[in-house]
Amino acid sequence: MAQKPSIPKGTRDFTPLEVAKRTYIISVIKDQFEKFGFQPIETPSFENFETLMGKYGEEGDRLIFKILNSGDFLAKANTKAFQEKDSLKLTPSISEKALRYDLTVPFARFVVQHQNELEFPFKRYQIQPVWRADRPQKGRFREFFQCDADVVGSDSLWQEVEFIQLYDAVFTSLGLKGVQIKINNRKILSGFTEVIGEQEKLIDFTVALDKLDKIGEEGVKKEMLEKGISEEALKKIQPIFGLKGTFSEKISILKTILDTSEIGRKGIKEFQFIQSAISEMPLKTAELDLDITLARGLNYYTGAIFEVAAPPEVKLGSIGGGGRYDDLTGIFGLKDISGVGISFGLDRIFLVLEELNLFPKTVTLNTKVLFINFGEKEALYGLKAIRKLREAGIAAELYPDAAKMKKQMVYANKREIPFVVLAGPEEIELQLYGFKNMKTGEQEKVSLDGLMEILK
Amino acid sequence: MAQKPSIPKGTRDFTPLEVAKRTYIISVIKDQFEKFGFQPIETPSFENFETLMGKYGEEGDRLIFKILNSGDFLAKANTKAFQEKDSLKLTPSISEKALRYDLTVPFARFVVQHQNELEFPFKRYQIQPVWRADRPQKGRFREFFQCDADVVGSDSLWQEVEFIQLYDAVFTSLGLKGVQIKINNRKILSGFTEVIGEQEKLIDFTVALDKLDKIGEEGVKKEMLEKGISEEALKKIQPIFGLKGTFSEKISILKTILDTSEIGRKGIKEFQFIQSAISEMPLKTAELDLDITLARGLNYYTGAIFEVAAPPEVKLGSIGGGGRYDDLTGIFGLKDISGVGISFGLDRIFLVLEELNLFPKTVTLNTKVLFINFGEKEALYGLKAIRKLREAGIAAELYPDAAKMKKQMVYANKREIPFVVLAGPEEIELQLYGFKNMKTGEQEKVSLDGLMEILK
Repeated sequence: MAQKPSIPKGTRDFTPLEVAKRTYIISVIKDQFEKFGFQPIETPSFENFETLMGKYGEEGDRLIFKILNSGDFLAKANTKAFQEKDSLKLTPSISEKALRYDLTVPFARFVVQHQNELEFPFKRYQIQPVWRADRPQKGRFREFFQCDADVVGSDSLWQEVEFIQLYDAVFTSLGLKGVQIKINNRKILSGFTEVIGEQEKLIDFTVALDKLDKIGEEGVKKEMLEKGISEEALKKIQPIFGLKGTFSEKISILKTILDTSEIGRKGIKEFQFIQSAISEMPLKTAELDLDITLARGLNYYTGAIFEVAAPPEVKLGSIGGGGRYDDLTGIFGLKDISGVGISFGLDRIFLVLEELNLFPKTVTLNTKVLFINFGEKEALYGLKAIRKLREAGIAAELYPDAAKMKKQMVYANKREIPFVVLAGPEEIELQLYGFKNMKTGEQEKVSLDGLMEILK
Repeated sequence: MAQKPSIPKGTRDFTPLEVAKRTYIISVIKDQFEKFGFQPIETPSFENFETLMGKYGEEGDRLIFKILNSGDFLAKANTKAFQEKDSLKLTPSISEKALRYDLTVPFARFVVQHQNELEFPFKRYQIQPVWRADRPQKGRFREFFQCDADVVGSDSLWQEVEFIQLYDAVFTSLGLKGVQIKINNRKILSGFTEVIGEQEKLIDFTVALDKLDKIGEEGVKKEMLEKGISEEALKKIQPIFGLKGTFSEKISILKTILDTSEIGRKGIKEFQFIQSAISEMPLKTAELDLDITLARGLNYYTGAIFEVAAPPEVKLGSIGGGGRYDDLTGIFGLKDISGVGISFGLDRIFLVLEELNLFPKTVTLNTKVLFINFGEKEALYGLKAIRKLREAGIAAELYPDAAKMKKQMVYANKREIPFVVLAGPEEIELQLYGFKNMKTGEQEKVSLDGLMEILK
């Protein structure tokens, strides 16, 4: 009967220490979300099949986990697909629900469904797991948390400014200095293609440009030429391949390139607005950088695009991202609602804090004091004190069995419980408690009040 | 293209106010779990198919949500089951994962899988959603949270005592007075059947006895007779049908009935131990009651059985339950590990607190102050102050657009933001802020320090 237990690949068990560390990161993020005026919502883990399908492209559809209908699901299966053994076509007839793939589409669905109960602009945050049937690899899981903040119902650029401040506030709170907040704008990218007369090649263009870091200028140009962009066109925008300098210097160069593009000039104006606001309110520890190679989910974003990179000394890539999307709720029938949002990558942030040893020591603390169990009478004496300690906010435990003292001390040690109380007949007689500091080995006898005093 | 958005039946969206209230309940429970020395773990939302199947009986298996394999799942489908269109038999070959049905089986799997990393007794808590394909009805959902605390690795009765104290501590913290903690013991129930020589009818016996409240003494006896228990047998245990009085009085009566049953006498001893400890450390607001009709998941529990009922004025039934199980990890190959645990019913507790109006006022608070947006210069002036407020821990927002003032005030009102700041050119000139209390309508001009002072 016994099974060798395991968990599905790409999923994880979290031990108490891991949960404590994750909870710490989440609580810092939540705290800042709330200070910035975002309100929490939660949506179901699974959505109707048709709510999710078709929203993430063909590849996304494939990666969505589908839930098998209950009962005799084959009775209602698509007969033709069944006869042809066509898994893909059969699926919609035997699965009417699917696990959410991200928090953005469920949020759009939520906004449309509850539009009459919400006040716009609606600022929400949402911290929940999502699931993707991706090939698992280092730092990529099939179940992971997303931490999203979005505003819908306003196209004010102050929101972009606030999101940059929000990133800065969260990473400053986490003690993670020197993160790079990279910003781009789809209008700038559109401007480039307009200037060279290749608007319809926007995706090919940006997919290639996005690789500048990896394959270099020559590589990018080669790919662009292969996609049918002319040598001459590339000359017109030559400066973008070596764009360097401060935010303002980059803006100056872009201005000359994009002078003839209306949408490009709009993008420049947005950059200028953001740059000017941030220079009036300097970031605390993050750096803001203009990065015209940044594309992310381009077929989605219509304005600003954000990405946050961990400090250069840890090579872990993106720890957050986001952008503006002008018509997200349109897919559910609510048109012309502009939205902008950002996301924090919990798992990556975890790895970065771990690597830089930035988790506060207090995060690992659990039970503060263990009472050794010497027998029934002593246990009761101990539990009475434990009750007072708990009421005073101190996490305290009684070892449940009157086991050998050595066993109990080893338990305290292994669990890294910092203090131990030993109270036998003598202490009970005197109404005292033997108190031992497990680190220093020091021991003393104290009253209950004394115990509370030391442990507080 | 537009779809009318909806969510799967039995699932829920949670609005900001609902999330805040749920978070409040969870944080009270977590706080007490931690004071009692429980440590958090988390397990994946889905487990391997075989980890879950067969653990909850046939009905349970049916209610488990199965996840369809990715890709061309029919390629590996069981040919015979496919040809016979047998959904039930086909399932294991097209689904290798399933959503967890409770937190207990995943916990057992966790303990066995991680046994070498854990210190026993291991006290864990776990607060995560579970899924059941149950028919949705009032208070019953297809996705809901469980809040569980369990200890494995010790059979000490002090743990039963502590769980009773834990229930008392949580409900006292929530301001919910007068909950009834009902306790029973499988050994007592076994004792009854031993006394009447019907040990093998234990389940039939307890299923009938469990209905005493609903169908009365005559109904229960009728059902027992139908199940083949004799008139004579029922006479032997006649006093249990009218068991009344204090905990001690009930114990006295049970003692006489169970005198000839060894297991029954053990049950009595356990009751006495618990009763004596609790009388030495009286509960704060809860009442402990002995209820021999309580059965719950009997084929699971081997010792104590707990159930918590909401105060009688709210008719909502059980808001928590649990018990001792002596061999939970045995199904995964780790024998003779005794466990005991309890659970809190989040959704029911929510309804009870709502009905009795017990949510603290502070739970509903969100953003404390909204800055009205009069234009670019004013917005920047406002954002500089907002930044200081946020650093001081005050949730503050700028209305993102320079919309009509009335629109912005209506927004503040509807969102129940208690204070509003109005700062135009005149205030900027004087480096002051117009401050309005939305409840009283009072207005004054204050400095930034003044603003911080009032809002703190």
